[in-house]
Amino acid sequence: MNSKTPKESSTVMNEAVLPNDTNVLGNLFGGRLLQWMDIASAIAAAKHCNSVVVTASVDNVSFQNSITLGEVVNITAKVTRAFNTSLEVHLDVWGENIPKGTRFKSNEAYYTFVRLGEDGKPAKVPELVPESDIEKKLFESALRRRQLRLILAGRMKPDDATELKALFE
Amino acid sequence: MNSKTPKESSTVMNEAVLPNDTNVLGNLFGGRLLQWMDIASAIAAAKHCNSVVVTASVDNVSFQNSITLGEVVNITAKVTRAFNTSLEVHLDVWGENIPKGTRFKSNEAYYTFVRLGEDGKPAKVPELVPESDIEKKLFESALRRRQLRLILAGRMKPDDATELKALFE
Amino acid sequence: MNSKTPKESSTVMNEAVLPNDTNVLGNLFGGRLLQWMDIASAIAAAKHCNSVVVTASVDNVSFQNSITLGEVVNITAKVTRAFNTSLEVHLDVWGENIPKGTRFKSNEAYYTFVRLGEDGKPAKVPELVPESDIEKKLFESALRRRQLRLILAGRMKPDDATELKALFE
Amino acid sequence: MNSKTPKESSTVMNEAVLPNDTNVLGNLFGGRLLQWMDIASAIAAAKHCNSVVVTASVDNVSFQNSITLGEVVNITAKVTRAFNTSLEVHLDVWGENIPKGTRFKSNEAYYTFVRLGEDGKPAKVPELVPESDIEKKLFESALRRRQLRLILAGRMKPDDATELKALFE
Amino acid sequence: MNSKTPKESSTVMNEAVLPNDTNVLGNLFGGRLLQWMDIASAIAAAKHCNSVVVTASVDNVSFQNSITLGEVVNITAKVTRAFNTSLEVHLDVWGENIPKGTRFKSNEAYYTFVRLGEDGKPAKVPELVPESDIEKKLFESALRRRQLRLILAGRMKPDDATELKALFE
Amino acid sequence: MNSKTPKESSTVMNEAVLPNDTNVLGNLFGGRLLQWMDIASAIAAAKHCNSVVVTASVDNVSFQNSITLGEVVNITAKVTRAFNTSLEVHLDVWGENIPKGTRFKSNEAYYTFVRLGEDGKPAKVPELVPESDIEKKLFESALRRRQLRLILAGRMKPDDATELKALFE
Repeated sequence: MNSKTPKESSTVMNEAVLPNDTNVLGNLFGGRLLQWMDIASAIAAAKHCNSVVVTASVDNVSFQNSITLGEVVNITAKVTRAFNTSLEVHLDVWGENIPKGTRFKSNEAYYTFVRLGEDGKPAKVPELVPESDIEKKLFESALRRRQLRLILAGRMKPDDATELKALFE
Repeated sequence: MNSKTPKESSTVMNEAVLPNDTNVLGNLFGGRLLQWMDIASAIAAAKHCNSVVVTASVDNVSFQNSITLGEVVNITAKVTRAFNTSLEVHLDVWGENIPKGTRFKSNEAYYTFVRLGEDGKPAKVPELVPESDIEKKLFESALRRRQLRLILAGRMKPDDATELKALFE
Repeated sequence: MNSKTPKESSTVMNEAVLPNDTNVLGNLFGGRLLQWMDIASAIAAAKHCNSVVVTASVDNVSFQNSITLGEVVNITAKVTRAFNTSLEVHLDVWGENIPKGTRFKSNEAYYTFVRLGEDGKPAKVPELVPESDIEKKLFESALRRRQLRLILAGRMKPDDATELKALFE
Repeated sequence: MNSKTPKESSTVMNEAVLPNDTNVLGNLFGGRLLQWMDIASAIAAAKHCNSVVVTASVDNVSFQNSITLGEVVNITAKVTRAFNTSLEVHLDVWGENIPKGTRFKSNEAYYTFVRLGEDGKPAKVPELVPESDIEKKLFESALRRRQLRLILAGRMKPDDATELKALFE
Repeated sequence: MNSKTPKESSTVMNEAVLPNDTNVLGNLFGGRLLQWMDIASAIAAAKHCNSVVVTASVDNVSFQNSITLGEVVNITAKVTRAFNTSLEVHLDVWGENIPKGTRFKSNEAYYTFVRLGEDGKPAKVPELVPESDIEKKLFESALRRRQLRLILAGRMKPDDATELKALFE
Repeated sequence: MNSKTPKESSTVMNEAVLPNDTNVLGNLFGGRLLQWMDIASAIAAAKHCNSVVVTASVDNVSFQNSITLGEVVNITAKVTRAFNTSLEVHLDVWGENIPKGTRFKSNEAYYTFVRLGEDGKPAKVPELVPESDIEKKLFESALRRRQLRLILAGRMKPDDATELKALFE
């Protein structure tokens, strides 16, 4: 099983915000965006693993700027780190107002997926080898985010979260 | 502005998983569930504030058990704590297989919303007064989750997150 | 096969009216509401029978007040009476304008379902035992509504509809 | 305001049942069919009135035979009678299995609409003049169905429902 | 295998343009119309062949006039000619503004389908016998359009497209 | 108004084929693909023009290989040539079966858009300057396809279609 770089599974999605996708304020409805992000990140995760994956968790989706009816949504999904049978994907979401020529950060998020083997059970994920500086930073912080998820799920004691603890010392 | 209890805005949603809602494995597609959760929690948040709200962040959605085609999704959304102009909602999602008579925990999550005043700007949120033991526990931990979100968003220094830090000491 | 009370299968659904759900007038589109009502009542019927059910008929859906873009739809579905292999569900639909703090009756309806056994054929439905006064009243009138459906379907002679006839005497 | 025949506003809709439209049994989902029927009958009602209409009630939808994935749904909507500011539309729904060359009655229903004038208030509906024998029969029975709706809505005393009462005498 | 006339498989579809179907300008979104046209023409093709068909190509969809929110879309699909294992369907799309009493040509298009036999492979299509003058004209020009498709797909040399060449001579 | 290269507006869209997107054969439903292609190409056209665009025509969509449930759809849309107030976009659609590691050409198409100015009327489109050999080839053939569209729409005499005629000589 060969390791891969983030670039090898990086996935781009562009969507237009139609009336069908809006909330009462005429902005992109949060639930619809979460759905597009789920598809984009699942494709990136599947490409890294070359197999079927299922969403395991969604974290730190932070909506900074609304995307409005008629604007374009630009999503980039990149694997940040592989763990044993799971992997984390970072999503970068931008809004574009084409007639105005503006482009703005809408939000970021981390989705985690589990790789399923042919028997439908969790299977080993190929290693991720980060290349750029940003990819290396995301690779390192992925460990802290994972410890956080395990603590929040009651599956790790805070005291064992060495990398996360270091943040506070 | 009167304080409210979690019960006053608690919101229940039941949905059936139709083919339209499934992924390749015949299970409820994660993106669709995130969308239903967004609607249920937005209604709870709006009821607490008696006004329009927008999704600010989604955290710690953790998918434990898949819900399958033909099963029922049962979502309960409850406000856990009000901050200045935002509030956190806890979601509890269960799957039910009615012919088999089984019911199982599918996942939990925290969605944060910002209250919008009539001028479309963030507005003060009424206080939340927890009643039951679970509500009190969620109220307390809400502060730690908030510090976590602020740190992850680069808007708080880890050292200032007093309640969160205490977890690791 | 144990009898059940209406409470045991009572099903609540809350939905927000998004642009996606509206008609040309900016109100909740009737067809979308009928779809939500079908899901809510099918869940209630399935819970009463602990098995798969199929919609047999829809009656007396009466739209009194429109629900508008941005308002919340609150549906409660309760079994009113079990017949041999079918059962009737009553639906109560309310609209809520959260910013205005108003809540109003939108419509009522009766959906009938047939219980399917494991062989896919109609199967015996457990008895329904009404408890409250309203439940008892709905239980009694269910017989008249059933006679009406059978007459309209040409499967009963008006003269044999004893309970229904009594209405006019 | 000129009277019209049923033919002048008769509306045909053909749809294919895709996976998107099915329930757990692989048949056309009742809620989706109710939605298509709402659109087809609203178009027929609007054509009769030459104006905007809103759904007032849905009655006697009786699902006799399921339509299955891959089959075609054929809906015909025809105005049966005009009342003061409302009109009744009869729907005839057939399923077609094209590869097998079979065609079967799926269900019938009556939808009632209210005509809205330019001020958004109920407005006078042009008279309907039935032509064929079936149209004349539907025209006559429309009065009984209307009395039934009014009784069920508590807006008419059974004793005043002259035409309906005659059924039982 | 008996030949058929265009009338035998002619398929009508009526739809209302709801907010769900519109683009940023409040008009019917092109992608949605293409989807409705695909369903209507697939039904016509399936009726001609009495079997399953798959879309092979879409040509010359030309949007002349926008259809607006609240207007009605009227689609008629008719087989123009059968080739060996494929057949061409002509679509005629009209918009109707019912309150204004206007009706206007929106667009035309040609969709081509391949008939699938029970083994899932392309199968012989029954002959199409045009009746009216318009049907005869469409039947003749279908050959030129087919040569065009084959040239554009690199499967025919321009020099072999006898009927098409004649256009330019 | 500055000219642009195809690269400047090139738009990528990745989608996963969910049950919601399939036809009776379990393949991507043609109508859904046409809708995704419409969005991707409209974004590319809007980026080239920096303004709102509307679909004018769809041509030569040729479905070569079906994309199946669970596979990924990869669409690339690139402007091929600008005319006076319209521009042509070429779409390249590939299917990917990630677990099998295969990738195959699904289809190609040309969509034409009209640029709308701020007054809602057709407006001048910036020039397109092709760079690569493929882009230059598509730029040249765009003229022939345009003559073809004009002839088919009855707005050009075959004899005036100089470039197209040359194909047959």
